[in-house]
Amino acid sequence: MQYFAIPDLKAYVIRYLTRWGINPDDAATAAEVLVSADMRGVDSHGVIRLGSYYGSRLAKGQINPRAELSVVHETSTSIVADANNGLGHPAGFKTMQLCIEKARANGIAFATARNSNHYGIAGYYAMMALKEEMIGVSFTNSGPLVAPTHGKQAMLGTNPIAVAVPAGKNQPYVLDMATSIVPIGRVAVYQKNGKPIPPGWGIDDQGQITEDPARVIDGGALMPLGGPELMRGYKGYGLALLVDIFSGVLAGSGFGEQVYGADSKNAARVGHFFAAIRIDAFRNPVEFKRDMDLLINSLKESPKAAGEERIFIHGEKEFEKAARAEMEGVPLSDVAVKSLLETGRSDGVPFDLEPLKVN
Amino acid sequence: MQYFAIPDLKAYVIRYLTRWGINPDDAATAAEVLVSADMRGVDSHGVIRLGSYYGSRLAKGQINPRAELSVVHETSTSIVADANNGLGHPAGFKTMQLCIEKARANGIAFATARNSNHYGIAGYYAMMALKEEMIGVSFTNSGPLVAPTHGKQAMLGTNPIAVAVPAGKNQPYVLDMATSIVPIGRVAVYQKNGKPIPPGWGIDDQGQITEDPARVIDGGALMPLGGPELMRGYKGYGLALLVDIFSGVLAGSGFGEQVYGADSKNAARVGHFFAAIRIDAFRNPVEFKRDMDLLINSLKESPKAAGEERIFIHGEKEFEKAARAEMEGVPLSDVAVKSLLETGRSDGVPFDLEPLKVN
Repeated sequence: MQYFAIPDLKAYVIRYLTRWGINPDDAATAAEVLVSADMRGVDSHGVIRLGSYYGSRLAKGQINPRAELSVVHETSTSIVADANNGLGHPAGFKTMQLCIEKARANGIAFATARNSNHYGIAGYYAMMALKEEMIGVSFTNSGPLVAPTHGKQAMLGTNPIAVAVPAGKNQPYVLDMATSIVPIGRVAVYQKNGKPIPPGWGIDDQGQITEDPARVIDGGALMPLGGPELMRGYKGYGLALLVDIFSGVLAGSGFGEQVYGADSKNAARVGHFFAAIRIDAFRNPVEFKRDMDLLINSLKESPKAAGEERIFIHGEKEFEKAARAEMEGVPLSDVAVKSLLETGRSDGVPFDLEPLKVN
Repeated sequence: MQYFAIPDLKAYVIRYLTRWGINPDDAATAAEVLVSADMRGVDSHGVIRLGSYYGSRLAKGQINPRAELSVVHETSTSIVADANNGLGHPAGFKTMQLCIEKARANGIAFATARNSNHYGIAGYYAMMALKEEMIGVSFTNSGPLVAPTHGKQAMLGTNPIAVAVPAGKNQPYVLDMATSIVPIGRVAVYQKNGKPIPPGWGIDDQGQITEDPARVIDGGALMPLGGPELMRGYKGYGLALLVDIFSGVLAGSGFGEQVYGADSKNAARVGHFFAAIRIDAFRNPVEFKRDMDLLINSLKESPKAAGEERIFIHGEKEFEKAARAEMEGVPLSDVAVKSLLETGRSDGVPFDLEPLKVN
């Protein structure tokens, strides 16, 4: 791993994105979300994607660097925004901000954003609600990778669910989960290492469970959370579909196979869903957070399975990693650094940062 | 199976519950929810529980038959109700009704109910929103049966998530899923039949996966959706915890191990959560339902895995079963009928219905 200073890495991302015509504010938002993913240990959604997703789509004109988010409909509790094919991170950030403002006034608000692009980690937007003493929710749909139960073709994205809830002395609860068992990147790592995947993660082009990562990636599909029917994988399929209903259908955006348009040349039609919920619409927030601590502590202190030493709450590992990154710098794998070097060179924004340390 | 006329079976449930001092309206609501579970094929949550859960708790004074639901706090978007230890079905029904009324006025509303009891199938309340052209959501917590990942003690309920979304020509999408892989009743069926359970459904008192149903039931625990860590069971654990946060902590009700009070003699403190969302707060409902049909049809028509003939949407099987029950009567297993006969005899409300047919 190589460790980079947080402000330097963010500044590089901003330089890279502004080179494509993204305005500095939007580039700063994207840098914030991308670097925060690397700090939290979600490196699959971090700066490694800078060239392969964002730069490549900007280069092909599939993302409009000058798009402005517009609000197309709103009520006292709802906002429907259109990203107009701009970068996903500023679209997500601005829509969640509007959602939080509306919840401040009315207790609860939902907001959707249509015609957007990949917005990074869903958890980032859910966590924006925490400093307002609100519960935050964020879903997004994505390109088809998951087959429905009894199906063999990828029809739904890995469609994540993120929910952030304030606690008292404990860190907040932050669920941020793909509704597939694993992301496709995890399968690709096994392929690269020449290792079989655990049975249940994916299926081949006949819809049969396979341990060969290549057969999942080439014409196969990921399995939804739960896996096969015997283990109730149709629940994970139901959750993936739920996310598509809220982020795609309710938002008036793409859904199912159409999230990336009819073919790969088209603009993406990714949809996002957000919610913000004031705790004090229901309870005194002090009492709420006290009870959150009681619940969290009861789980963490409950008896451990043989061989296990610690029970985690969702988000806890990521908060610890982010705290470490604040001290040591942002950890990037050699593969991520190599991708930044290549992307920077080919796109005329050389990646010239010196790591703080290497190990 | 024995098939009973719908009105007769509901009338029997009403007779049984009013015998315990439940008023006829509340008894009718409970009958509606319980019989609807049997009609939809969710027999574990149907009339088989009449004596074992409801009657037994009424007999011990653990449910207050004369409790009235009270609203303890409300805003333009939120309702906090207290069931005051009454029956769960009328508490759920009335709270969801209030939630729908508030959503009608303000677009979106959330409602919680505290100090309640088992309310039957979560999906019933979510589906109440459908006839209003709204999306309905319902969660409830329940007694501890599920161990957190790395833990070995049951700390969370099977905490279901139910979401109902209107469609156009297709039946609505109705997800109604426990956040464990299977309910404990499913494990009990394997025990009764002397069969091993599939590895992953449950753990023993050391937190190890066991195929022996008895070791799950006696001192073990159910596994959350996903199962072991390798298959990302911590996501199912995160969903079970999420449901407890919304139904327990946000509602100011019991949570975690305390849902049924400190000991079994205490009144239950089950909490429920509800949401109602007007489609037209976001989109023209006609367009929304057209897109729901497109998404549903694309999934159903997608290529099938080898050996499979049909891809289902969530709720579809249950709608078909309910339609069959409308024609043929409510199907009850011999075990369910036996339990009604015994309960009816011991509680002085003989179960005297003749089946329409037996097969």
